Amino acid sequence: MVKVGIVGGTGYTGVELLRLLAKHPGVALTVITSRSEAGLPVADMFPNLRGHVDLVFSEPHVDNLAQCDVVFYATPHGVAMAGAGELLARGVKVIDLGADFRIKDIPEWEKWYGMSHTSAELVDEAVYGLPELNREAIKNARLIACPGCYPTAVQLGFLPLLEQGLVDVDHLIADAKSGVSGAGRKASVGALLCETSESFKAYAVPGHRHLPEISQGLRQVVQGEVGLTFVPHLTPMLRGIHATLYATLTGDADLQTLYETRYAGEPFVDVLPLGAHPETRSVKGANTCRLAIHRPQGGRTVVVLSVIDNLVKGAAGQAVQNMNIMFGFDEITGLDHVALLP
Amino acid sequence: MVKVGIVGGTGYTGVELLRLLAKHPGVALTVITSRSEAGLPVADMFPNLRGHVDLVFSEPHVDNLAQCDVVFYATPHGVAMAGAGELLARGVKVIDLGADFRIKDIPEWEKWYGMSHTSAELVDEAVYGLPELNREAIKNARLIACPGCYPTAVQLGFLPLLEQGLVDVDHLIADAKSGVSGAGRKASVGALLCETSESFKAYAVPGHRHLPEISQGLRQVVQGEVGLTFVPHLTPMLRGIHATLYATLTGDADLQTLYETRYAGEPFVDVLPLGAHPETRSVKGANTCRLAIHRPQGGRTVVVLSVIDNLVKGAAGQAVQNMNIMFGFDEITGLDHVALLP
Amino acid sequence: MVKVGIVGGTGYTGVELLRLLAKHPGVALTVITSRSEAGLPVADMFPNLRGHVDLVFSEPHVDNLAQCDVVFYATPHGVAMAGAGELLARGVKVIDLGADFRIKDIPEWEKWYGMSHTSAELVDEAVYGLPELNREAIKNARLIACPGCYPTAVQLGFLPLLEQGLVDVDHLIADAKSGVSGAGRKASVGALLCETSESFKAYAVPGHRHLPEISQGLRQVVQGEVGLTFVPHLTPMLRGIHATLYATLTGDADLQTLYETRYAGEPFVDVLPLGAHPETRSVKGANTCRLAIHRPQGGRTVVVLSVIDNLVKGAAGQAVQNMNIMFGFDEITGLDHVALLP
Amino acid sequence: MVKVGIVGGTGYTGVELLRLLAKHPGVALTVITSRSEAGLPVADMFPNLRGHVDLVFSEPHVDNLAQCDVVFYATPHGVAMAGAGELLARGVKVIDLGADFRIKDIPEWEKWYGMSHTSAELVDEAVYGLPELNREAIKNARLIACPGCYPTAVQLGFLPLLEQGLVDVDHLIADAKSGVSGAGRKASVGALLCETSESFKAYAVPGHRHLPEISQGLRQVVQGEVGLTFVPHLTPMLRGIHATLYATLTGDADLQTLYETRYAGEPFVDVLPLGAHPETRSVKGANTCRLAIHRPQGGRTVVVLSVIDNLVKGAAGQAVQNMNIMFGFDEITGLDHVALLP
Repeated sequence: MVKVGIVGGTGYTGVELLRLLAKHPGVALTVITSRSEAGLPVADMFPNLRGHVDLVFSEPHVDNLAQCDVVFYATPHGVAMAGAGELLARGVKVIDLGADFRIKDIPEWEKWYGMSHTSAELVDEAVYGLPELNREAIKNARLIACPGCYPTAVQLGFLPLLEQGLVDVDHLIADAKSGVSGAGRKASVGALLCETSESFKAYAVPGHRHLPEISQGLRQVVQGEVGLTFVPHLTPMLRGIHATLYATLTGDADLQTLYETRYAGEPFVDVLPLGAHPETRSVKGANTCRLAIHRPQGGRTVVVLSVIDNLVKGAAGQAVQNMNIMFGFDEITGLDHVALLP
Repeated sequence: MVKVGIVGGTGYTGVELLRLLAKHPGVALTVITSRSEAGLPVADMFPNLRGHVDLVFSEPHVDNLAQCDVVFYATPHGVAMAGAGELLARGVKVIDLGADFRIKDIPEWEKWYGMSHTSAELVDEAVYGLPELNREAIKNARLIACPGCYPTAVQLGFLPLLEQGLVDVDHLIADAKSGVSGAGRKASVGALLCETSESFKAYAVPGHRHLPEISQGLRQVVQGEVGLTFVPHLTPMLRGIHATLYATLTGDADLQTLYETRYAGEPFVDVLPLGAHPETRSVKGANTCRLAIHRPQGGRTVVVLSVIDNLVKGAAGQAVQNMNIMFGFDEITGLDHVALLP
Repeated sequence: MVKVGIVGGTGYTGVELLRLLAKHPGVALTVITSRSEAGLPVADMFPNLRGHVDLVFSEPHVDNLAQCDVVFYATPHGVAMAGAGELLARGVKVIDLGADFRIKDIPEWEKWYGMSHTSAELVDEAVYGLPELNREAIKNARLIACPGCYPTAVQLGFLPLLEQGLVDVDHLIADAKSGVSGAGRKASVGALLCETSESFKAYAVPGHRHLPEISQGLRQVVQGEVGLTFVPHLTPMLRGIHATLYATLTGDADLQTLYETRYAGEPFVDVLPLGAHPETRSVKGANTCRLAIHRPQGGRTVVVLSVIDNLVKGAAGQAVQNMNIMFGFDEITGLDHVALLP
Repeated sequence: MVKVGIVGGTGYTGVELLRLLAKHPGVALTVITSRSEAGLPVADMFPNLRGHVDLVFSEPHVDNLAQCDVVFYATPHGVAMAGAGELLARGVKVIDLGADFRIKDIPEWEKWYGMSHTSAELVDEAVYGLPELNREAIKNARLIACPGCYPTAVQLGFLPLLEQGLVDVDHLIADAKSGVSGAGRKASVGALLCETSESFKAYAVPGHRHLPEISQGLRQVVQGEVGLTFVPHLTPMLRGIHATLYATLTGDADLQTLYETRYAGEPFVDVLPLGAHPETRSVKGANTCRLAIHRPQGGRTVVVLSVIDNLVKGAAGQAVQNMNIMFGFDEITGLDHVALLP
């Protein structure tokens, strides 16, 4: 059994990790830490875990965590970069669900995240944990930077087009919509039901932290610059991301076949038939990304629809998928859920 | 492997059955019928099943169904009573998620359901599938009448009090709130998002079909008459029932201990600590009933809070639980889900 | 024009007051104070007010407020009792939407609200602002204690029965459901969309601050003790309260006629026809209380259904209704809205 | 008083028209027709109208309607074109909230709406009722074709850019999100709460009926062809449209000033300050369109955010605004509502 530790299990990605790992046949949930909740049984905070998880929050001491084979960080940025180094030094693999190791350009990271990066050397080593792009590197990684939720939906949607050089990469548009759980589980006026229910809005149009992450990923694919406009929106629902992607075709191809071929072997990417409209609820609680491809009115604009559950394929599920790859489990182990509908 | 058939898999209890059975290690999904959708792959109707269920809807011919070991009816009332007899005669066990076999008093059933009952003889044989009450009878049953959703939440909440004769049974009140999925998946104005979202209302206060079912169950426990006022309410959410139960104590007891003891061995009933307030989301997608007991201001009125997921413990999950008991599986097989939170 | 001041306009009752008063033909919005937001235009905080309200938040100095004819307190408890005295001394009328002057029994108030009361002498003077009960006293009042949201819905539902002595007052039950806006507009985990959407729960079953307020009101009507069990629930919607009231009949009466007669002249109480089920959305944004009366199965239990918009008839609308009465306006002035449906 | 008739008041635009007109000081609600509901008081169908509207549905006879000064059609397409001619002939003005007279190209209309057009001659006469574009023509019109909801939000967002020739009109993108009330009040599975809540999806990506309407409007502005990709999405809320518009700048201008100047005199268009993100809830129940302009990262892509309430500025409110212009009322009469927040 792989011994697992979790740092920061009091948020929505934390409870989602626990939901997934509690039923994973190959792991032993060993440690969960939270400075503020030390001493509290996890199931007292999240009653859905009663009868499934009997862990108690403990202080985030490195000695507690070092007994694990792998430690997940489900923390705000800045925490993982402070702790990962020592854990790695003590032979523990680290999977960061946060943003600390996602962006290779340190000054760029520091600009967007507003703090100094204290582990620049680990950024180099970290493998960006998008299995559909980096599966081989993940296998041997010690340190995984799990992609953000928007970046997962957007990159999986754009990848086949960009890999084949079929579109004008100077004018890509990603119009993305997220459920409110993306805002996390912390006291704030902006995420109150009364501020977010029965309303819809864009936010961070001048610039969102996921923009440099997505751009970095797309640049790597095209081996050059890309021009991306990324507009995130807050949607009155709990879970789910719907990315609507627009690009102008420069070449010709059977797009449907292209996508089906690209993702043929992928257990967690499902290309819908031509003309389909994926619903976010079709992936609620599941680690799946569903895609559909359109060329409205047969024009040069291609529209890709991409849906994920931001807490699963966009966070905790993808983290477990990475763990499965790193530790030699079948990739779908513990992740083969049917989405909850309705 | 137990071969399973489903009649009427186009509703919410149907897709929920498929979600649960698709991952049940002991069953083979063999037949699913729908007169209106014959020929359609189930996963075309419910995309969450893509990659998990490859069944195609077929005509509801008895020969198709008779090859199964057990057939679930997830149909409106009137369908199961027309087909169950022949299936039983051919050695197939039947689990009805509908109302056809729940009420022993045939004229009473006919009054509430507005049609003649055509299988009165089977009503006698049918076992009321509330495992916490009838586990032994279920083991050997050929025909199960699965309890309704409200009756499950209300009976599990009242049982310990009534079994011990601690309350005035002439003045029981069950104020129950249900998500909209209880209204089913059929075209109707009343269940539109625009008619049900951002609103709350009572309905069927003069009389709801679940009233005689609950009363029958409570009468059986007390071996006498009961006076129950049952008021159901429609709640703007997808899943979940919250029953708030009121009774006047006539005797004395440590109620918390009473409930904990009564349900100590039950895998799907979870008695919360004193003073707790169960949330319906703590059972979303899970087969659990969570209960909490209160005596406000230390008075003679006891308040029991009971929550279930109406589609799981209130329908499909309880049906699978019954199947597990009937076929000798561990009772939690295929039902050990952690609720999806948030 | 009546010059109006508002203390604490940054919450939901505050913005609702502004919505109503901005279109009231007889008032001039003169001052709005907020210590934390001084200098900010109100419409920058609440964009729905753009073009309708050009007030700027100012410091809560008494000199600012003393130029008004009436000041509304839309503040947490403890604020109004600190400021009302001086305003009254300077000839300003005060309408408190909070709890400071609702409960006549000071030690009782202090027990439930957890602080010392510093204006006990004003509690005596304050008129409980339920116009359907106290219209005459309101006319000449200097200081109004606006009822809480639950107390408004519950008292209007019970009043006719209690006034006529028709029910057993030792066993009253009020099972009440509220939208999340009742929790206010402050940073808290408990009121996040992700904690409250798609879920339903009871809360404060051991005791809620509105219990002593309701009991005080009912005791006054029956001129004696009452036994009330009050269970509030949190409902996944923005606005609305639905109170389901249970009582046991001791006398006989035509209940429908009783209610219609009792409220015949009331502009904001609407008794629905026999057998109806009021929806909270039928009063969304309106100052109306809608009631329906039932006797399920013709038994001795009477069920009253009572709905209001907690921010209107349960708070800001009722406050304006009180102001209308105090200043001699037609009672419906500025309050004659059609509810927003859907 | 202007005598008003409504054909088809059983849908959401119908009840919204009634909400607005019931408080309009210059009109007398005279006739409301519905074939299916003849004889029913309107307030029995929509309880929010109790006490405000005492009309009874009548048969849709032309003689009933001909006594009016103006008749609103709040009907599915095909109804207004069958009845408008005779009403016009009898001196009644007609305002169609449906699609019958919106598209000047009859074969194009017939292709998208799937029926023959029986009143081609009236299409020529009809004035497209977008006051911000056609105010003068509306003043003298006999027949108004009210714009669709999406076309209103999209055109108001694009107009200033296109009028000034500042963007590449061959590559316009309108990514639009609508609440579920846009689907109307008719029995259908697709608009059930259980099919639409807690989910988000695009629909009609291959082609939506509002595409030719928007294109026609934009072509008229630029006096030439436009290339528009229009992707509508279904959002889990009752009301509101958010259009996110993308265009590539070809010229230079101070966009903020451009928009503020263009809409300076418009009572129902509100340009937010630079960098703002309008929320749909800021216009809930109000006839306002709120706009914000962005140039992310200072690039050549301009992003316009445009929000309306689809039932008000996108339907009933805009219809009343047209009526006000046609009959010489102040344009904001009966429409000066503050949006309901929260």
